[in-house]
Amino acid sequence: MKNNRYCVIMCGGVGSRFWPYSRSSKPKQFIDFLGTGRSLLQMAVDRLKGIVPDENIIMLTNEQYAGLIMEQLPQLKKDQILLEPARRNTAPCNAWAAYHIKAKNPDAKIMVCPSDHLILKQDEFRRCALSAFDFLDRHDALLTFGVKPNRPETGYGYIQLGEHAEGDFAKVKTFTEKPNEELAKVFVASGEFFWNSGMFFWGVDTIIKAFHDLAPDIAQRFDSAAQVWGTAGEQAYIDENYASCPNISIDFAIMEKAPNVYVQQVDFGWSDLGTWGSLYDNSPKNRDGNVTQNCKALLFNSHNNVIAVKGDKLVVASGLNDYIVADVDDALLIVPKSDEQKLRTYVNEVKSNFGDKYL
Amino acid sequence: MKNNRYCVIMCGGVGSRFWPYSRSSKPKQFIDFLGTGRSLLQMAVDRLKGIVPDENIIMLTNEQYAGLIMEQLPQLKKDQILLEPARRNTAPCNAWAAYHIKAKNPDAKIMVCPSDHLILKQDEFRRCALSAFDFLDRHDALLTFGVKPNRPETGYGYIQLGEHAEGDFAKVKTFTEKPNEELAKVFVASGEFFWNSGMFFWGVDTIIKAFHDLAPDIAQRFDSAAQVWGTAGEQAYIDENYASCPNISIDFAIMEKAPNVYVQQVDFGWSDLGTWGSLYDNSPKNRDGNVTQNCKALLFNSHNNVIAVKGDKLVVASGLNDYIVADVDDALLIVPKSDEQKLRTYVNEVKSNFGDKYL
Repeated sequence: MKNNRYCVIMCGGVGSRFWPYSRSSKPKQFIDFLGTGRSLLQMAVDRLKGIVPDENIIMLTNEQYAGLIMEQLPQLKKDQILLEPARRNTAPCNAWAAYHIKAKNPDAKIMVCPSDHLILKQDEFRRCALSAFDFLDRHDALLTFGVKPNRPETGYGYIQLGEHAEGDFAKVKTFTEKPNEELAKVFVASGEFFWNSGMFFWGVDTIIKAFHDLAPDIAQRFDSAAQVWGTAGEQAYIDENYASCPNISIDFAIMEKAPNVYVQQVDFGWSDLGTWGSLYDNSPKNRDGNVTQNCKALLFNSHNNVIAVKGDKLVVASGLNDYIVADVDDALLIVPKSDEQKLRTYVNEVKSNFGDKYL
Repeated sequence: MKNNRYCVIMCGGVGSRFWPYSRSSKPKQFIDFLGTGRSLLQMAVDRLKGIVPDENIIMLTNEQYAGLIMEQLPQLKKDQILLEPARRNTAPCNAWAAYHIKAKNPDAKIMVCPSDHLILKQDEFRRCALSAFDFLDRHDALLTFGVKPNRPETGYGYIQLGEHAEGDFAKVKTFTEKPNEELAKVFVASGEFFWNSGMFFWGVDTIIKAFHDLAPDIAQRFDSAAQVWGTAGEQAYIDENYASCPNISIDFAIMEKAPNVYVQQVDFGWSDLGTWGSLYDNSPKNRDGNVTQNCKALLFNSHNNVIAVKGDKLVVASGLNDYIVADVDDALLIVPKSDEQKLRTYVNEVKSNFGDKYL
C-alpha cells in the first residue's frame, strides 16, 4: 500500500545566533551541536523512523547547502532535495513542497519540521506525530504542535487554545508573539497557552487551498506551471521564478489567517535550541555548572559557562562565570550569557568591519 | 684593529609564563611579541649595532632552537651559535661562552644579554654598554646593569649599591630576591636599590678566574679540555660532557659570591617582559585600555584586557575587563590579569592532564 505520510524538513536557515560556532557556510543544523556524533539535521531525520518512510522525506534548503545535505544524508535521492535559489522565508518553500509532493501523491499528508530543534522524548514524539496524521484523516485541518510550557519562556511565541476538537486537539484561538516575562507568567499559569513549535501537519489539498485563499500571489506562481511539478523541468522553473515570490513566513501568510487551524497539545521534551542559553539549558553540565561543548577544557574557579570550541583545541580559563566562549577556525567569541540578545548586533558589526570574511 | 668587544645572547629559555602564546617549540624570544615585525631576539641583536660587531655575537641556546636562530638571524655563522645539549641554567653556559671566546680572542670583554627583554631607549642603552666596556678596561670587574626603579615592582630582584667606584659605577652590597610590596616601596624610596637586569659584563680572564675560585666543579670540566675550545672538536666535547655540569645560575654560582662585583646604574626603559602584566604595561593601548596584540578584535564594553591571538583570527568579546586572552593554534587561555601568578600552575595542570601535547 502506498504510504501517504510525508515529511518536509526545512534546513535552509543561516543561523547567526550561534556565530561563530555556526557559520553561513555551515549553519547550526549541519553541526554535531550536542556532541552526539550526529548533526541536528541528522537527528531530525533519525527521529522520523516509524513515522515517515525514508523515500517520503523532502528537504527544503538553499542551494548552497545541497552538498552538505547529500554528505550527511546519503540515503536521500537527489529529487528529495528541493533547492531554493533565493531565501524567501517559509511560505513560498512550503507552497513549493506541497505542489511537488501532490504531483507524486495527490493523497499526501505532510508533516513540516525544522531541522535544528531538539526533541528529547523520541517515543512520545512518534506517538504525537502518528496521532497528528491520524487527525488529518478526519479533519480538513492545518495543524500545529503546541508544546506544553514548563516555564515562562520569553523567547518563544505562544498559541492560545480555542474550541476543543477531540483528545489533545483544539482549534487555535490566537497566535501571539514573544511575550514579556510578566505576560509569559500569566500565559503559563492560565493553562491555555502553548509554545509555538514551528511544526505543522496538513494534507496537500488543504494547504494548497489555503494558499489560494490567503496567499494567491504565491499560489498563482505555482498554478501557472501545473505541468512541471514532479518532472525534470521543475528545478529550472523554480530557478527562473522562485525569486519573484514574496518574502513571507508560513505563520504570517497562512496559519494566523486560516479558519481551519488546529493545535495538538504535545509534551516531548522540545527546545528550539535557538540561543546559547537554550543550548546551555539542554546540555549536560559538570559539577561547576559548565557546559563544555564537545571540547577539552581546564576551568578554574569558573562556573555556568558554555564553552564551545571545535576540534582538538584546549581551553584553559579561570575566573570566568556565566560566559559563552565559542572558538571556531578564525573567530573567537567571548560574551556574557546575558548578552546573547546582542549577538546579532555583534555579528552585524563583524560584517560591517570585515565583510563576509568571518561570517 | 681587532675588536675585543663580544656579546653573548642567552636564548635557550622555554618561557611557560606566556603559554599558549609562547610554546616550548617556539618560546617568547622567537616571537614577534610586540607586533614590530621583529622577534624579541632579533630586536636584541639589532640593538647591538654600534656596540659589538656582528661577527663577535655569540648565541647560547638549546640545540632544539638552532633552526629558529639561523632562520631569524641569517647574518650569523654557524660557529657563532653554541648549542647546549641539555638545560643547565646560566652558569655552565656562561663558562662555555668564556672558554669559547677566549680561544678566539684572549683579550675579549664579554657582554651577556637575555634575548627576551625590552629596551625602549636604544641610544641610552648603547651609551651605557660602551661605558661598561670602558669600565672593564680599568677594573678587574664582574659588572652588572642595575636599572633605576620607577615603581615598587615585586616581580624583580634588586641590587643594593655598595661603595662608590666612579661615575655611575659602584660595588654591589647585596643581591636580594623579589621583595614583597612593602619592602619594595622601602627599596625604591631609599634610592640605594636597583633592579637586577640579568645583563653582565666581564673580561674572559676575570670570569674564568671567578669560575676557578667559586665554581671549580664547573671550571674543571672546561679546563680539562683546554685544546678543544674554538676548534671543530668543541661541540663533540660539549655533547659528551655538558650534561654532567651542575644545574646552577650564574647569579647564584658567581655574582652573589664574588668579591669584585660592580653595578652600573642605568635607566634606558627596560622591562624583562616577564609577565602578561609587564607586556600590558609596555604595549600601546586603545582608548578602552585594551592591548590587542597583533590581532583583529571587536571589543564591546571591555576594558584593560590583553588580547593576544595569532594569525588572522578575529576576536569578538563583550563585558570582559582585566583579562588575558591568548589564542594560539590548539590552545586558548582566558584568565584574569590578577591570576597571572597562577599561570605556571595552570600550565602544570595542562601537562599533567595532556602531557606535552599542548606545551
